[in-house]
Amino acid sequence: MLDSIPSFARLVAELSKLPGIGKKTAARLVFHILRRPQAEAEALAAALAEIKRKVRFCSRCFSLTEQDPCPLCLDPARDDRLMCVVEQPQDLIAIERSRSFRGRYHVLHGALSPLDGIGPEDLRLAELLARLEGVVEVVIATNFSVEGEATALYLADQLKKQGLRVTRLAYGIPMGSDLEFVDEATVNRAVEGRREL
Amino acid sequence: MLDSIPSFARLVAELSKLPGIGKKTAARLVFHILRRPQAEAEALAAALAEIKRKVRFCSRCFSLTEQDPCPLCLDPARDDRLMCVVEQPQDLIAIERSRSFRGRYHVLHGALSPLDGIGPEDLRLAELLARLEGVVEVVIATNFSVEGEATALYLADQLKKQGLRVTRLAYGIPMGSDLEFVDEATVNRAVEGRREL
Repeated sequence: MLDSIPSFARLVAELSKLPGIGKKTAARLVFHILRRPQAEAEALAAALAEIKRKVRFCSRCFSLTEQDPCPLCLDPARDDRLMCVVEQPQDLIAIERSRSFRGRYHVLHGALSPLDGIGPEDLRLAELLARLEGVVEVVIATNFSVEGEATALYLADQLKKQGLRVTRLAYGIPMGSDLEFVDEATVNRAVEGRREL
Repeated sequence: MLDSIPSFARLVAELSKLPGIGKKTAARLVFHILRRPQAEAEALAAALAEIKRKVRFCSRCFSLTEQDPCPLCLDPARDDRLMCVVEQPQDLIAIERSRSFRGRYHVLHGALSPLDGIGPEDLRLAELLARLEGVVEVVIATNFSVEGEATALYLADQLKKQGLRVTRLAYGIPMGSDLEFVDEATVNRAVEGRREL
């Protein structure tokens, strides 16, 4: 039956590629879209077509941005002596939401994971080391997972060699969790209680 | 932070309009899309833009189709003496999947629900009554919910006046459930055990 509606089958197939969306959920979404006005489907299509064209990585901090360098890197009100290192752009967003950090950021785009074959050269580590002039303290805010902790230790080692103060977000964030999903108050407390590594 | 990436915020807002997708899930989907190749986002956008333009209701049975009349209405191998009445196109798909019915279909696009102000004139009822020539038996496959049952009784009343045999899918499908999500074997048994109303 659905074979005779190729555009239906195609949208189900495309939606099923998204994480957490199986064939049944995808079909439910398509029926919903078919019941809504044409303009709504077109707005979603336009937003999708637009995002990959407009959003890129900032050439300084490697966070997501529509202009390069990103507004955070250009903001003159931020403290150049403080640098916060995160795994992913969504971690940066979690910290910004907590309004507890007023320095600059650097996004590694991953964490060290020898088992998955991810070494220092697969992260934006060289780019971090190249932009530390004037920085006094590096706050390491990688995730509190095994990979995130290993990355923090590796980074601390590298950075201390350069005579930098290296801190880590305070425990208080449960082990094994992803920063992205932690509530703002907890992130805030963790930033304030950051400790020497 | 996200305010400075309007295309990101826009896609999150559009995705959040879909059923079962909140702001956090939407953000997770957007991060996924940003990690994937441009072609994948464009394929999804194209499928979305296409579906509302291509898919319409069949002018005979009111199911979803890309050609009018739909392939099911035009199929000469189907039995014109049997007519199955369902609430939604997805119910038709559930029955087709069970391969237990070889007649024609009619999609009401809803069920009677006085509390929600949905009366007979809000459904495709007049269109059903206008296409019963040559039909011997009407199989009522509305959902087994309060509204679906009320619609079945109302329909049976109308159709019997015209001297038609009226049957209902056999119980066996749990009360309160939606046909769309019932497994094929159960739907098959229910079609075979349909009873006189």
